[in-house]
Amino acid sequence: MFTVTVRDHMMIAHSFAGAVFGPAQRLHGATYVVDAAFRRSELDDDGLVVDIGAAAGVLHDVLAELTYRNLDDDPELEGNTTTEVLARVVADRLAQRIGDGALGAGAGGLEGLAVTLHESHVAWATYDRPL
Amino acid sequence: MFTVTVRDHMMIAHSFAGAVFGPAQRLHGATYVVDAAFRRSELDDDGLVVDIGAAAGVLHDVLAELTYRNLDDDPELEGNTTTEVLARVVADRLAQRIGDGALGAGAGGLEGLAVTLHESHVAWATYDRPL
Amino acid sequence: MFTVTVRDHMMIAHSFAGAVFGPAQRLHGATYVVDAAFRRSELDDDGLVVDIGAAAGVLHDVLAELTYRNLDDDPELEGNTTTEVLARVVADRLAQRIGDGALGAGAGGLEGLAVTLHESHVAWATYDRPL
Amino acid sequence: MFTVTVRDHMMIAHSFAGAVFGPAQRLHGATYVVDAAFRRSELDDDGLVVDIGAAAGVLHDVLAELTYRNLDDDPELEGNTTTEVLARVVADRLAQRIGDGALGAGAGGLEGLAVTLHESHVAWATYDRPL
Amino acid sequence: MFTVTVRDHMMIAHSFAGAVFGPAQRLHGATYVVDAAFRRSELDDDGLVVDIGAAAGVLHDVLAELTYRNLDDDPELEGNTTTEVLARVVADRLAQRIGDGALGAGAGGLEGLAVTLHESHVAWATYDRPL
Amino acid sequence: MFTVTVRDHMMIAHSFAGAVFGPAQRLHGATYVVDAAFRRSELDDDGLVVDIGAAAGVLHDVLAELTYRNLDDDPELEGNTTTEVLARVVADRLAQRIGDGALGAGAGGLEGLAVTLHESHVAWATYDRPL
Repeated sequence: MFTVTVRDHMMIAHSFAGAVFGPAQRLHGATYVVDAAFRRSELDDDGLVVDIGAAAGVLHDVLAELTYRNLDDDPELEGNTTTEVLARVVADRLAQRIGDGALGAGAGGLEGLAVTLHESHVAWATYDRPL
Repeated sequence: MFTVTVRDHMMIAHSFAGAVFGPAQRLHGATYVVDAAFRRSELDDDGLVVDIGAAAGVLHDVLAELTYRNLDDDPELEGNTTTEVLARVVADRLAQRIGDGALGAGAGGLEGLAVTLHESHVAWATYDRPL
Repeated sequence: MFTVTVRDHMMIAHSFAGAVFGPAQRLHGATYVVDAAFRRSELDDDGLVVDIGAAAGVLHDVLAELTYRNLDDDPELEGNTTTEVLARVVADRLAQRIGDGALGAGAGGLEGLAVTLHESHVAWATYDRPL
Repeated sequence: MFTVTVRDHMMIAHSFAGAVFGPAQRLHGATYVVDAAFRRSELDDDGLVVDIGAAAGVLHDVLAELTYRNLDDDPELEGNTTTEVLARVVADRLAQRIGDGALGAGAGGLEGLAVTLHESHVAWATYDRPL
Repeated sequence: MFTVTVRDHMMIAHSFAGAVFGPAQRLHGATYVVDAAFRRSELDDDGLVVDIGAAAGVLHDVLAELTYRNLDDDPELEGNTTTEVLARVVADRLAQRIGDGALGAGAGGLEGLAVTLHESHVAWATYDRPL
Repeated sequence: MFTVTVRDHMMIAHSFAGAVFGPAQRLHGATYVVDAAFRRSELDDDGLVVDIGAAAGVLHDVLAELTYRNLDDDPELEGNTTTEVLARVVADRLAQRIGDGALGAGAGGLEGLAVTLHESHVAWATYDRPL
């Protein structure tokens, strides 16, 4: 299996509901350093899983919808926008764009996608899904 | 699949038995930067794999039993305490504590655990097990 | 010259005033991974610049006043809380606590302090001052 | 499952054929920081997946065949030497050497191998294969 | 003193002349992860050393002149393009652009600049100059 | 000013004397990831601060005297071998070897040296001295 990963980041505000979150119930924020890992069993004719520049571009577009915002005000996000929930949001939006052709016809060979959000130097979360 | 990972560290002394270890047969030591990765298929009602603060707390408790010690003197550790052996020790002790309720009832949804010990900037080991 | 550095982090929300900030004028947030570097010309009698555990404790206390908050609502912070401004805030508060004895009498030998706030994997800021 | 990973690097020149590569069609180069991850279900009698020193030595030998070269001139490499293609080249050559006994008879317990090439701080690729 | 640093990268081919370089006399290449650190004693009226977005843009423009090229063919580069030589090239070109107004009139307060090129996970070089 | 830095590591056991050290009074250990930074105002005729391979070799030789040992038993080390003390030991031994010609005659242009020992992902120490 081959995997290609690209990294970008977003900077957001949010708050959480539920006593388990303690002080994180207050409005606060995070930088998420985001890794998107694309995988497939066989390379395409150019020797690629996916073009790194194209993959970085699609990831940047998805993060542009979220960065520099208070996620509590985003009508498309429901419930707590924890790191693991946001990893799924980013992965599902990437999958949607890939399905819509953002990475070209060759991306049909992609079999899966894992998105990791690093919230600090000591904590991160991943959501892994098929394509 | 969702995964949440937390990082901590321990600083221990030990020695190894066996010619394969060369100079590491002498008493020496290591800082292990330890990543504990918890995984489950579905998030709990709060949108969590596990509360990051609680996970960090349980990891810290497990490492507190090992850090600032000469592992050669620990009666609970048998054989060579290589990086991969210690990864299993930490993972199994985390699993024991989770089974004992250290992460609450919601942790029943956890399906697996992977513990990585970084012994330097150029070498690390992981033990991955079900829960 | 000797320097000892300890690392911690904080997660805050804020917004900026001024066209130069573009989308960062909106309420957003950041994880700041914070490095506090203490320096002195000669070590103390224990062979230390500063006890790493004590230094980490003071840094944690200073960050606890800021983390999990919307800094726009903090009456002690005026103007834009840019990364470089916050580096100075953290450094000055560390200096105040050191002056108040938080690191013990031996800390009188400290000559300077540099605080770095990493806002992402591609940007960070430092404020360096004497003690 | 246990995994042990060792890290080394190589510095090469190459160019790519195909419009998808844009400016990378020109002769350019890369530092690849290379992680080789060896895995097996059970440890050997010494408590090892593989001896870290021996694994590092074999990885270094494989990279020595590639580093400080223009890969466009290497008759053993066909097509575009993309990051993912080179990850497979390194993995397959490691597998060949392991099969030839470079890691000793105990390496017979190894079940798989994953090689990751980091081409920058924002992009990397992995090839994962059985042994 | 305040410092703001931004990170980008370039991927180049080159060769060196001189027996001291050993195998690096052959045509090979490198990824340079480049950190540009801007410093000044006092912040501007917006609370900035320099706008991070603008600084990142200027750095990207300077690296665009070098990346995806064989530096042996660049008529503006003489002698060995070692890591330390390229650190100076990048720093001097940044200084030239800042002098030409690329960071606006407010950049007149900048006092110095340090450029670090990371050639691998185990080696890097810095050139530090006044502005 | 130009600086070239090379990285290596050592793995040692030791204990500390003094109540300030708490549990670190027990025999324990550390991996020190060691950065040696060499600086000079002008490059040599090859465009170098120091040959990176030669610098890495000298650093490796100095660390070979310390690694895989219990530093409590080393007759050349007196008092507590804290991270900052060991940074000075490594720097002074590097300076001694440079003075003895280990980096060749061209190393006469070196003006200073800074050695950083990383004891974990959250703490490190530096000793900076002239040459």
